[in-house]
Amino acid sequence: MNPDEAMALAIAASERVRGTTSPNPPVGCVILDADGVLVGEGATKPPGGPHAEVVALAQAGERARGGTAFVTLEPCAHHGRTPPCTRALLDAGVARVVHAVADPNPKAAGGADVLRAAGVRVESGVLADDVERGPLRAWLHFARTGRPHVTWKYAASLDGRVAAADGTSRWISSEESRAEVHDFRTKVDAIMVGTGTVRADDPRLTARVPRRGQDVVRQPLRVVVGTSDLPPGARVLDDEAETLHLRTHDADVVLGALAARGVVDVLLEGGPTLAGAFAGARRIDRVLAYLAPKFLGAGPSALADAGVSTVTGAVALVVEQVSMCGPDVRISAVPAR
Amino acid sequence: MNPDEAMALAIAASERVRGTTSPNPPVGCVILDADGVLVGEGATKPPGGPHAEVVALAQAGERARGGTAFVTLEPCAHHGRTPPCTRALLDAGVARVVHAVADPNPKAAGGADVLRAAGVRVESGVLADDVERGPLRAWLHFARTGRPHVTWKYAASLDGRVAAADGTSRWISSEESRAEVHDFRTKVDAIMVGTGTVRADDPRLTARVPRRGQDVVRQPLRVVVGTSDLPPGARVLDDEAETLHLRTHDADVVLGALAARGVVDVLLEGGPTLAGAFAGARRIDRVLAYLAPKFLGAGPSALADAGVSTVTGAVALVVEQVSMCGPDVRISAVPAR
Repeated sequence: MNPDEAMALAIAASERVRGTTSPNPPVGCVILDADGVLVGEGATKPPGGPHAEVVALAQAGERARGGTAFVTLEPCAHHGRTPPCTRALLDAGVARVVHAVADPNPKAAGGADVLRAAGVRVESGVLADDVERGPLRAWLHFARTGRPHVTWKYAASLDGRVAAADGTSRWISSEESRAEVHDFRTKVDAIMVGTGTVRADDPRLTARVPRRGQDVVRQPLRVVVGTSDLPPGARVLDDEAETLHLRTHDADVVLGALAARGVVDVLLEGGPTLAGAFAGARRIDRVLAYLAPKFLGAGPSALADAGVSTVTGAVALVVEQVSMCGPDVRISAVPAR
Repeated sequence: MNPDEAMALAIAASERVRGTTSPNPPVGCVILDADGVLVGEGATKPPGGPHAEVVALAQAGERARGGTAFVTLEPCAHHGRTPPCTRALLDAGVARVVHAVADPNPKAAGGADVLRAAGVRVESGVLADDVERGPLRAWLHFARTGRPHVTWKYAASLDGRVAAADGTSRWISSEESRAEVHDFRTKVDAIMVGTGTVRADDPRLTARVPRRGQDVVRQPLRVVVGTSDLPPGARVLDDEAETLHLRTHDADVVLGALAARGVVDVLLEGGPTLAGAFAGARRIDRVLAYLAPKFLGAGPSALADAGVSTVTGAVALVVEQVSMCGPDVRISAVPAR
């Protein structure tokens, strides 16, 4: 198995635990023995449980000796709730460690140096882009900025409307797009809407479909932002998941409250006012737009009041990926640097 | 040279004359001699001039005898302003004719039968999709419906705005997108806007860049639609190109007037009101949206008042192609059948 293949397996392992590890990163690890044969695979367990390296090493046992560990993130060198992973790798006698991205967290970083000092060959950068844009995107953002990562998802008609003139919006996007969003919901720590959306749509904001390969539907935290009261009997107040009502419109107040609860990865599901507040505060870290091939010609636009008055003051983005999702166009964009 | 290569050359030849042949179709023709060697190439001359087959046969001369003609459209069998192309092909002694698409015009059709009856091998369908979606798209639509083909082009922010809150719109889309639109303008018969756009933007509506490979900038007809008067001194009233002011909002009245002038291919360049009238009348035959990766959060949306009140009544489209144009996302969509 070559390094790219091994790292791709480690990434796949980490994808399976996305949304279950915060505030810890969803890391994946694969162990090859001295002959390059796969002998262990693992991913971060929920907080308090072992890290990916320890899970994979436990599976490999003695066969890890002289082998290589492929890890999506530089192994930690600090003693948090669990012992440092560098210690576990050294104890297992691993000869070489390949990680995708370095740990930006000053407290945990330095793992590569510790390993090198102990005579282990350390390499980095393998499939780094895939990891940075994929499973570790939110956590790396959190580690670098201290703020949870916000993905704004919206579904609009080609002319940018999120509802028709009479307020109806079911369904603008295709079944395929809606299924993808439900799968996305199972992988985040929190789903956020404004009080306006709760009043207009009374959404449940739950993940209804178990994520691929799992039986249980894990429910992310439901977050409602806005100063008005929630209508009694609103579905977000049911027992299916926990709900947090934050009586503010300030994006940083919201993110601070979420960070304090260990939330790292947030899915912002509109509506236009809340999205506008986050866009205006430059607190949207990724946009995921599902554009349905239809025209409405009336009704609310996806985004309102982002504080932009003239065309040169627009919130600048860069398109990261464009693809089809069923009949819809899926555009992923990130803030321009 | 194989049939696909020969037809691709014929398509390229026809692309070079787009916008110069209406109401005749921009057809391309390539002649291979009996050994498959390229001996002639041509495209439709402006109205009154020879058709593509005649141009290509003239170049080939005696070498056409026993050879094959590749034509993007079934050769005509009728005597219009020029003699039938079937006659020219038979006189030249061509042994085989391959065309991409059949002629839907009952007056001109039957060319294939005439040729077959004279002992010529006739085949069809080679690169038919490329021709139908490409150089002959507008003309085939015109031949089938009697109406000029309307491409609605717009440039919007990712949130669907065509101008900022203060009305500024220069420039929402990138230099690359704007250059592409200027090139597109050189290939249509008419560019159409509403009186609102003339008042707001005072556009020149001219093609400023000579099309690739040519020195002269051919100017399409400028069409302004709407009941209000044009401001004196409006740039569309200058001498750079002809301008037609149609005092109506009815899409079919507009298209009837244009058809009467031999216009086959129309580029609708907004604004929201005129585009809404055409979308509501189901008279947009293709949408070409340039979505710039930026947010405005305020300002007019691309489309207004398309007569849609509820989400299930949306104007349904199908995405034909999605691609990048510089930093912008280019979406081409057509009406759903």
